[in-house]
Formats: sequence, C-alpha cells, structure tokens
Amino acid sequence: MIDKKSLITLLLLSPAAIWAQTNDLVPYVKPIIGTAKMGHTYPGPTVPFGSVQLSPDTDTIPYAVDGRYNGEVYRYCAGYQYDDPTIVGFSHTHFSGVGHSDLGDFLIMPTVGALQMNPGTADNPKGGYRSAYSHDNEVAEANYYKVKLDDDNILAELTTSTRVGFHQYTFPKSDQSHIILDLMAGIYNYDDKNVWTVVRVVNDTLITGYRQTNGWARTRTVYFAMSFSKPFKEYGTQNNDGPKVYRGFWGKFDQSKNFPDVAGKKLRMHFDFDTQEGEQIKVKMALSPVSMRNALENMQAEVPHWDFDKVKLDGQTQWQKELEKIRVDVPTDEDRINFYTAMYHAALMPSIYMDVNGEYKGLDQEVHKAEGFTNYTSFSIWDTFRAFHPYLNLINPSRNADMVASVMAHYDQSALPMLPVWSHYANDNWCMSGYHSVSVVADAIIKGVYQGDAEKALEACVTTANRRSYEGIGEYIDKGYVPAEKSGTSVSNTLEYAYDDWCIAQLAKHLGKTDIYDTFIKRAASWKNVYDPSIGFMRPKLADGSFKKEFDVLETHGQGFIEGNSWNFSLYVPHDPVAMMENMGGKKRLSRYLDSLFTMHLPDEFFANTEDITREGIIGNYVHGNEPSHHVAYLYNITGEPYKTQEKIRMILKNQYHNGSDGLGGNDDCGQMSAWYIFSSLGFYPVAPASDEYWLGSPAVSSASIRLENGKNIQIRAINQSDKNVYVKKVTLNGKEVKGYKLHHADLLQGGELVFYMSGKR
Amino acid sequence: MIDKKSLITLLLLSPAAIWAQTNDLVPYVKPIIGTAKMGHTYPGPTVPFGSVQLSPDTDTIPYAVDGRYNGEVYRYCAGYQYDDPTIVGFSHTHFSGVGHSDLGDFLIMPTVGALQMNPGTADNPKGGYRSAYSHDNEVAEANYYKVKLDDDNILAELTTSTRVGFHQYTFPKSDQSHIILDLMAGIYNYDDKNVWTVVRVVNDTLITGYRQTNGWARTRTVYFAMSFSKPFKEYGTQNNDGPKVYRGFWGKFDQSKNFPDVAGKKLRMHFDFDTQEGEQIKVKMALSPVSMRNALENMQAEVPHWDFDKVKLDGQTQWQKELEKIRVDVPTDEDRINFYTAMYHAALMPSIYMDVNGEYKGLDQEVHKAEGFTNYTSFSIWDTFRAFHPYLNLINPSRNADMVASVMAHYDQSALPMLPVWSHYANDNWCMSGYHSVSVVADAIIKGVYQGDAEKALEACVTTANRRSYEGIGEYIDKGYVPAEKSGTSVSNTLEYAYDDWCIAQLAKHLGKTDIYDTFIKRAASWKNVYDPSIGFMRPKLADGSFKKEFDVLETHGQGFIEGNSWNFSLYVPHDPVAMMENMGGKKRLSRYLDSLFTMHLPDEFFANTEDITREGIIGNYVHGNEPSHHVAYLYNITGEPYKTQEKIRMILKNQYHNGSDGLGGNDDCGQMSAWYIFSSLGFYPVAPASDEYWLGSPAVSSASIRLENGKNIQIRAINQSDKNVYVKKVTLNGKEVKGYKLHHADLLQGGELVFYMSGKR
Repeated sequence: MIDKKSLITLLLLSPAAIWAQTNDLVPYVKPIIGTAKMGHTYPGPTVPFGSVQLSPDTDTIPYAVDGRYNGEVYRYCAGYQYDDPTIVGFSHTHFSGVGHSDLGDFLIMPTVGALQMNPGTADNPKGGYRSAYSHDNEVAEANYYKVKLDDDNILAELTTSTRVGFHQYTFPKSDQSHIILDLMAGIYNYDDKNVWTVVRVVNDTLITGYRQTNGWARTRTVYFAMSFSKPFKEYGTQNNDGPKVYRGFWGKFDQSKNFPDVAGKKLRMHFDFDTQEGEQIKVKMALSPVSMRNALENMQAEVPHWDFDKVKLDGQTQWQKELEKIRVDVPTDEDRINFYTAMYHAALMPSIYMDVNGEYKGLDQEVHKAEGFTNYTSFSIWDTFRAFHPYLNLINPSRNADMVASVMAHYDQSALPMLPVWSHYANDNWCMSGYHSVSVVADAIIKGVYQGDAEKALEACVTTANRRSYEGIGEYIDKGYVPAEKSGTSVSNTLEYAYDDWCIAQLAKHLGKTDIYDTFIKRAASWKNVYDPSIGFMRPKLADGSFKKEFDVLETHGQGFIEGNSWNFSLYVPHDPVAMMENMGGKKRLSRYLDSLFTMHLPDEFFANTEDITREGIIGNYVHGNEPSHHVAYLYNITGEPYKTQEKIRMILKNQYHNGSDGLGGNDDCGQMSAWYIFSSLGFYPVAPASDEYWLGSPAVSSASIRLENGKNIQIRAINQSDKNVYVKKVTLNGKEVKGYKLHHADLLQGGELVFYMSGKR
Repeated sequence: MIDKKSLITLLLLSPAAIWAQTNDLVPYVKPIIGTAKMGHTYPGPTVPFGSVQLSPDTDTIPYAVDGRYNGEVYRYCAGYQYDDPTIVGFSHTHFSGVGHSDLGDFLIMPTVGALQMNPGTADNPKGGYRSAYSHDNEVAEANYYKVKLDDDNILAELTTSTRVGFHQYTFPKSDQSHIILDLMAGIYNYDDKNVWTVVRVVNDTLITGYRQTNGWARTRTVYFAMSFSKPFKEYGTQNNDGPKVYRGFWGKFDQSKNFPDVAGKKLRMHFDFDTQEGEQIKVKMALSPVSMRNALENMQAEVPHWDFDKVKLDGQTQWQKELEKIRVDVPTDEDRINFYTAMYHAALMPSIYMDVNGEYKGLDQEVHKAEGFTNYTSFSIWDTFRAFHPYLNLINPSRNADMVASVMAHYDQSALPMLPVWSHYANDNWCMSGYHSVSVVADAIIKGVYQGDAEKALEACVTTANRRSYEGIGEYIDKGYVPAEKSGTSVSNTLEYAYDDWCIAQLAKHLGKTDIYDTFIKRAASWKNVYDPSIGFMRPKLADGSFKKEFDVLETHGQGFIEGNSWNFSLYVPHDPVAMMENMGGKKRLSRYLDSLFTMHLPDEFFANTEDITREGIIGNYVHGNEPSHHVAYLYNITGEPYKTQEKIRMILKNQYHNGSDGLGGNDDCGQMSAWYIFSSLGFYPVAPASDEYWLGSPAVSSASIRLENGKNIQIRAINQSDKNVYVKKVTLNGKEVKGYKLHHADLLQGGELVFYMSGKR
C-alpha cells in the first residue's frame, strides 16, 4: 500500500521519473561496457533485437587502402572506440561484439558554420565535420544516448524504435546550421564498397533512398526514409565519383544544389537550416530491407509523431520486459550491472530483418513475406550456437523459434542449398568454421521450441552436412577428417563437424530416422581421427594419414585451428567428453591437462595469433575471450573434481566481466560471451546443445527468478552464497537432490525451485 | 470461293506454309534495312513494341577508354553493323535507330571446342568466342533471325515473345559444346558501367539473375530467367573484378566452377554440353524490370513450351495484325517493302515495360503495378512527338493512350517533377532539347485518345514547362528566350519551348483553362525573340539582348542549335508558320529560302557537325536524316506553291528510303523517320501535333486502306498515280472537295474515301 506522502511525491514526478520507478532494471544496463579495446560493443540506442542500431562512430577509416588490408580498422568493428577523442557522426546499423564487420549505414552529423563535406581524420579532426566530445558530457543508456559535440556546441540525443532511428539535435543560434548525411561512410569501408546509392528529395522535410554495398555481405541493399522536424532551407549533394565521360544527362541540371534526383557511388549530402539558440531539430531515419516505400511505411507505423521522449520510453519499456525475464539478487551493484548488461548484450543480435508489413529480402535477393514468423538476420552462428541460442530456448523460446524459421527460410532461398554459416542482410559471408546451424536447429526441435516442419529441418541439416565442396566436407566424409593440405583449419573443422554431426544424429533419433542417425553418429566420432596419441593432442593430419610433422601445440595460425590453439581445441568434443577423456588418458590426464591450461603462460608470440582478445581475455592458456573453450571449465565435472569447475567458473565470472568500458576481455561475439555469463551466474551451462542437458557450475547469484514463457517460474536460491562460498555441496530441484552434475531442460520447464547449498570448503 | 485443287494443295502444305498464306504482309518487312552505316536499326527478332529485342551484336567495343570517348562506339548504337565480318553474340535488348545508346543485355553465344571466355576483337577475331558469318547464310524476318556461325559450324536461330528471347542452336557433334552468357557485354559499355550482377544457378536447366548498369540510364536493373532445353553437364564463372582483399567468403568455395551463387561486377559464365551432330539446344531468356521471380513468371506465361516454330509464328501473326492496319497498293515491291518496313520500324519503340502480372519499376525506383494500362518505356520524345505519336493516334490510339498513361506515371514518380525528356528503364537521360512530352500529351487529349485525367495532365505539362532549373527555362520565362551564355543550344531550345508552350495553350483551351491558355499562348510567340531581321535567320541572343556577333548560319555546333543549323531551325515554328513567314519577309522570301535550302551545297566542314546522318541523309542543306526539318517540305503550302511540296515529298520518299541495309540516310530515330515515310506516302502529315490538322502532300501509294480502331476505314485513292504524276490537282474527302491544304483528324475518324487526283503537270 502506498502512503499519502509517497503518492504526492509520485504525482509531482516527471513522466520520466515515474518510468524510472517502473522500468527498474533498465538503469543497470551500461551500454558503454565493452566499448574500449576488443569488446566491440557499441554505446548507442537500440531496442531488443532492433533493426536499427543507432550509435556514434568515432572513426570511419577504410578496411583496405590500395588493395591492402588496414589492420587499424579492426578497432572499429562496432564503430566506436572509447578512447577516441572525436565523433564522426551517428550511423544506423552496427553489429555487437564482432571480430570482422560491415554496416555503419547512413551516417548523420549536425554541424554549424562553414560547411565541411568530409569527415576529417584523427590527425586533423578540425579539417572535417567530425567533432571533439568528452565522456563527461556523454550518457549511454538502453535506448538512449546523449553527447555534447564540442566543436560546434551541439547537443545530440538519440533513441530508436525497431526500425526507426530518432535524432534530436539542439543547435546554437546560427544561419549556417547543417545536418550532414554521409552516404559514403561505413564500417569496414573499401574504396569500392559503395556499389550504388540513390536518393530522392521528396519535399523539404522528407528524403528517401537506398544504398547497395559489396562488403562482408556481398550484395547488400538498405533502403531508408529520412524525415526532418523542420523544413530545410537548402540542400546539396557532393558526388565524389570523379569526372565522367558524357552519359546523357550531366550538365542539364546543376546537380550539386537543390537537385532532388540523386544517384551515384560516393555521395554526401547536406541540409541547411537557420536555427535559434537552443532550437531543436529532430530527424527520423527509418530503414527497410525491401524498398523506400516500406521504409516510409515503417516510419509511419512506428513513429508517426515527433515525441522523442515517448520513443525513448517505449524502447526502455521494451528493455524492461526483456530484462525482467530474469530477476536476480546479487551481492553488488557491479554484479547487477554485469548481469543486466549481459542480458542486454544477449538481446541485440540476430536483429529483426523485416518490414512492418512482413516483407524482407531473402538470400535469393527476392522480396519475401514472412508468413507466421518474424524474420531475423545477422547470425554469427559459430559463436552463438554454444550458449546464446540455448539461452533463448530457455527464456525466449518463441523468439528462437522465429530465428530457426529464419534459418530455414535462408536454406529455402539458398542456391547451394545450405543452412547459414555467418549470414547477414540476405547474404552469407561463410565466416568461421563448421555448419553449426544444425546445432541451433536440432537444439530448438529437441527442446520443443521450433514448431515448424521438423523433417524438412532435418533434411536441411543433412544436405548442409553433405555439401562436399564446402571447406573440406567431401574429404571429411571420405576420410573421417579434413586433411591438412585441404584447409588451414583442418583440425578445428574436423572437431566441429563431428559435433555438428552428433547434433544431426540427435535430431534424427528424435524424429525416428534410424538410417540418418546411424550415418551421423558414426561421423560424430571423427574427432578421434585427428587425435595424436603420441603427443596427447589434436593435431593436423595429412591426406596420406600421417600427422603433420611441424607442429606446435601453442600455435593457432597455420596449425589447423582458428581462434584457439591445440591446447584449447583438443578439449573440443562437447558431445562425448567422457570418451574424449578416456581417449586422452583418463581422468588424471584430463585433470592435469585442465590444471595446466588454466595456469600455464602463453608466450606473446602465440598470444598474438589467438585473435580477437586482449591479454585480459586469457587465463593461463585458457582463452575465454574466444569461444572454443567455453565449455572447458565445466569439464572437471567428469574428472571427479566438480569443485575445480566451481572455482574456475566463479573466477572467470569475476575475472572476465567488469563494469568499465574495457569490461570485456574479448569480442562479446553477438551475445555469446554474455550468454555464458548469464548461464554461469545462474549455476548451470549447456555444454552440448542438442542434448537437453545442462552441466552444473557454481551460481554467482544469491537468488534468481526466471520467468518462463509457459507461465512457470524457476526460483534459484544459492544458500550461504558469498564470494568465498563458491563450492556447491548439494543441489535440489523441487526438493529432490540432483545426483551427478546434470540438469535437464525438460525438468526446468516444469518450474519450481532450484537450490544450491554453497560452502567455502571444497 | 476456293476450288478443290487449291484446297488439296492447302491441306498438303506445312503449317509454316499455311501461315505464309495468312500472314501475307510479313514478308515485306526487311529488318536488315538501316543496319548499315547510320540507320542504327537491328536485324534480330522482336514482336510489336516487345520488351525483348533479341539481335546479333557484331561488336561490343567500349564507349570510353581511360575516361575518353571512343567515337567508334557510335557505329554500334544498335549492336549490329552490316559490314562487320563477325558476330560476337546475341543480346536481348536494343534500341532501334538511336544516335546514342545503352542496353545489349545478356549476350549469349554458342561455341564448340576449347573454351574462350572473351569476345575477341575485330583485329583478332579468333582470339575470342566471336565467330565469322556470311550474309549468304543470314535470314532476317520480322520475329525470326537465322545465321550460320562459321567458326564452329553452328546454326543459330532466334525468335521472341514479348518478354522472352528464344534461341535455337544446332550444334555439330562435340564433347566440348558451350553456351556462353556474357554478363559484361553491352552496348555503349564503360569500364565501370556494370554496377552489379547476380546469378543463381537454380538447377541444371535454369538460372536466374539480374544486372544493374550505370550508363545512359543512370540506375538501370534488368532481371532474367534463363532456361535450357537440355541439362548442362558443367558450368563455370569467370569473375573479372580483379583480386580482392579478404571480405569474408572468398576461398571457402571454388567459385569458378559449378558454384551456383554468383555475384560480381564483371562476370562471364559458360555452360557445357555434349552434343550429337545436328543436335539442337534451345535457350529461353525471359526478362523483367522487377525481379527474377517475375522473369520466370513471364517465361512460364508466354512460352511454357519448347516449340520454336510456334513462338516464331505467334510473333509473326502479331506483326501481321500490326501491319494490316494499313493495306497499300504501291507501284513496286521495293515501295511495298519500304512501306511495311517503315510500319515495322514504327512499332518497335517505346517498348512494353511491365511484367505479365502488371508490375514494373518506376522512375522512383519503386515497384509499381500498372492499373488499367500497359506501361511503356524508351521514349525518344524529341524525335517521336513529331509524326510517330500522331501516327499512333491515327492507327493505334489505344496503344498511344497507354503511352500517355506511361508518361503520366513517369511524371507521378518524378522527384523534380517533370514529364520525360528521353526516358528508358526507370530513368530519364534528359537527352536532346525541349519538353516535348507536352506535345504528345496535348495531341492525345485533343484528339480524344487519352481518357485519363486531362486536368492532371495539363498540370503536369505546366509544371514541366515551369521547371526553371532545366536547360535555361528560367531565363526563357523571364526574357522570352534562352540567352546564348546559358546554353549551347539556346536558339533551338527557345524555338522548341515556344512550340511546346503552344501545345500547352491548345490543351488549356481544350479544357477551358483560360488563364493557362493566356500565359502559354504568349510564351508560344517567343520564337520571335531569336529572329534576327538584319540577317533573316534565327540567331543566338545574349543575355543583354544583343545578338551573338560570331555566327555562321551553316554551323550547328556552338551556334545555339542541335542536329540542325540555322538554315534548318529558322523554319521551326510549326505552330504558326504563317506568322513565321510574315516575320521573315513574306511568301516570296520563304519560297526562295526553301528553294535554296533544298539546292544549296553544305560544305563538309559544316556537314560533319550535323550529326547522326550520312551524306545521303541530306538534300542540299535540308537535313532529312535529322528531325527539326521534317515539316519543312510541307511549307510550300503557305507560299502558294503546293506543287513544290508535292515534288519535294515524292523526291524525299524516293531519295531517302531504300530497301538495302544502307536504306536509311540517318538514324531511324525510334520510328520517327518511318512515321514520316508512312504519313507522307499516304499524302498528308501532322505539321503541328496538338492541332487536329494534317497538311497535304503528295501520296506515293496508288491506294490505301486504313483500318481505324473505331471500326471505320479510310480508303485512300490516288487517281492517275505514277512516279511522274506527283502533282495533286484536287483532293476530295467523301466526295467533297478539300479546300486549302489541310485535313482534320476528326474528319478522318469518320472514315470514308480520300481521293487524290494526280497529274504530271504542276
């Protein structure tokens, strides 16, 4: 019951303050976490799985110069580096936590004074439209970002709906106020990445257009509709395509000024205003994968008004709904911020890729209508099959069902055909190894999440796994391993294919397809073929059956692995770790091996090739900042030393996740690092997706309440929880003791109480 | 009544022979006319106003090399030059009779033996896939083309439906037979014209794809679906984009061979077959402006079978229906061939630009559905407003109504907005001068042809005429002329704007819009402002009101004109020739002027700048091969010397139109030259479209029957017709003598008999 005084206080509060009372978890999201060094997150606003990720870019340097890779570009995978002193502008699409990139569409920058139509450089920031800023004048919340642009004294505020970026710029008094739309800017830009751009100035407050790029996505087009709250007085276009031989129309018009029918490869535009002191100009930028018309429809459907605060509040309310699926009690605010920021980061990708009318562009470059599902794109599946998709299967199954439907649509539209490897915006860039979509599909079906045609899904998995021309699959099928001559990542491919094949076998078993099961359960044992018992490690094998002679178990590059050396990858048999352990010498060998992994020193020369992580992303030779070892700390459960798992998990949770901008030791990898954090904080982890098992760790929460979509709740209690009491003496589920180290998804779905009895002693 | 013997003969005939009896006019079409020198017609098959123009290209040289114009490319505006010894391949889109170009999409070439993946050059034809051929082994009919490709002994036959090109190749025995699909080839090609290309190999008989180009049309995409009658055994892709920095997927597959998911800027593909001696492989290539899916739907709707002869016959039957709208009796087969080939050339453009489901891409680059009309593209309006659209208004009004609807859709989709100037494939290239769409629109409304919203059409005309930023219109409105400083074609612009303004005035009067009439009838007198009485010619005027000092009445370039010098353009007041005559000194002056025009010698230095014509395209200084003087021979009607008009018309008909490949003295200009031939052969000509008047000339037919859409017929008889009897003594319409030199469209629509009484004496 609310007392009178509280009621009066409440009535006197601003709407924003009232919201603050209801959206109580939103303040624990700190989008700035991971924006320094190698986290590759972005600080700007978005809604859960939103199509628009509107965020400041602190540089827009090219990926390649004169045909050569520019290593510096890697820092700008998400557009923003916390330590940079200037902001170039605000663009509308960003990946979260990737180690290669694309996007950065439609960069907008407000300026005042003499028009500058180039972004300037880090060395000469005043030479372009970029501006200095200070973190003191910067606020980054879920779905809200604010910064003062010091050069021209402009306050920039950003928020979004699913498909609309909403900018609010507060200008000083000037008769030379500008809003620049840079259609050349982009993340991982090449000189010829912009394939074509079209812009139509519909009237003095509305422009529409699209841009086609050839980048990580080979054929990618994003359409837009851009609306100003105030008519511009003039506008112009800078066309940087260079001089052209006469082609029919050049010169008929002065196309540089107030000319509404714009097209070219390298365009920048400016819109000019008179502004009073403190005058706000707002900009809405709606995106579509299909057409300008759809972009405009998206804008009209989602944000038909000019109320910035309402858009912000609507989005934050969406965040609250996403976050409150799990309510945790944790020892400190730092833990709480880590937890809810992890939930935030685990709700950014894949992103919705569909207009409000259901249309989207398919992998076949045709327009499709999503019937009965929401279509998603940007699947970084090598990362996310591990914990992220299982996480959704637990707390967000309807969304994951739609993601599986999206994956199946991708397959239907594939010319090969194949399920996606790393897909975004109607393309597959085939980045990383394996065909782990089969894990995502199998896990969702086995857990009862995906309600589509399961037999067709199995067929898609089998077809993908039999695509002989892809990355050594043909040789793998014939020989049981990928020969080292065939691929630079022959060992990791073999190991990952073996796991994927096991997933297919599980799905086949689930559907009663014995012949498929038999075939794939045999293939699932292929990991044995790259184990060299003479050295006790996985090792590249040549086509003739002999192991590669020159070999270093610490090296990653050129040794048959990717994002992990043999020390890490030799443990990658998530579907049959006990057999793996037996194969490598039994419990003692594995125990010693794990002990060494976590404590040995990885010399710099080898660390440098581990990729995508800082020194902080590594513990001994255990690479938490990359994915292949994400299950490793749980393996002490089978050496008979679960206490070591418990120690290690708690140590990693503390060690690898912090509140600062440099709070992530490696790329967040599209939510996988965060999903690991969430699961492990709750005390269990999906070691082998496509089974219904979770392995026990050590919960970091004091208590948690997980709201399931089926209406049930899982109450987690960690009795006697503390930083020191990391050891789990007993676990009960609904009062019944859990024997062994496993929980079952089906049991958790029943809801009830999961109690961990914690202790400071092993 | 058919006798018994004839009936038996008929029954014994092959279907093709039966057709030959019914499609009796088709054999008089000789598509080869105009394929040499500057006619710029193409010999390959198409149906009336078809979307596909499938024709051999004898070279595919680039428009520009290293950023500099390559003058040689002009010869290849239609892809084919009669005198060339080799054929590069068969492409699917061609303009007819243009003086600048684009298109040439999806070049297909069959070859045998070692694979050659480049076209070769004229100097080294054996170095590429092109082949020698002989005109002895070449047949070009309406909707049928056949040629033997000598290099590899392949017989190529081509036919089309509206949206499908149908190839039939008869191969020798070989295990190395190939069909090459060159996606780089094109007409007026630039190094960077191919913006993007996508191809999907759907299965071993079907591929789909699209190509986007940046040429004369700035943003142009054509989609295709290509089907083979026999499965290929292998296929491959040559990607000539050059080496790329890693962008995510290169190297995962061998993309050069049997890889179905193809994209890039510069692609060529080959499809490989085993063939027996005399084995036919057929290829269907369907086009769409909207999507691959629509292209496939077009193919399935129009040509669901593999019967080449049926497609050929269907198309030729369409041609027969088009041709038999006018049946003529003429003295010789040469005349008949000239006449029906002119009708053929006047039924090629504009072309249908819409899928079978009604969808097309609009000027706004959005997909639209044509509701209640057929959408057309490729409007070369500076040429065709003169006689071609009036010709359609007489014999094909429903089609011209759809063309006006297409022009209005263009306006609705225009960002400027403006009616089209020279538009093709969802673009305007703004080629040539004036805003002559207003003539097309006004003529169609005044003649009762266009049934759409006339007031909206008038508004579109007015808006277009007031687009101040276009080609000096602003100055023209303010000063009454385009100042010479503003435009290199200041005089022709002024003259053409004046005529166009008169068209708007006529339309306004027709709709009772007095204020608009008043404004534009004043503007229509602007031609007077560029007439210099001191020299008796139209002359460039400077902004200060003085005439340009350096001036040569014989020169075209840099003197304020385009495709015609002052001698020709000084007569360009089609809407008020009597006032023009008075202004320039009266009947005697005009008579002497015209006499001089037709008899004087134009020195080579000036001829060279006249553009788009051969020496044969000129009579004295009268340039028939270009358009500005097309009304000029009729002007003797107002000097009181109609006999001179009659002489000149008959002389031009004989002199400028022949049966040979070099039978056209200049570009056919998308049917305008042919429409002039048809009207003038029939004895009358629309001197000022947007009036309902035709001026009388001298008919070259002995008789003619014009079948009107309203069910009426116009029977034309030229009594005492002969090559010598060119003088018209009397004209009667339905028995009533025609006084003066004019006929009225409304009178002709009533049908009946138009009789010319011919004589050999003046």
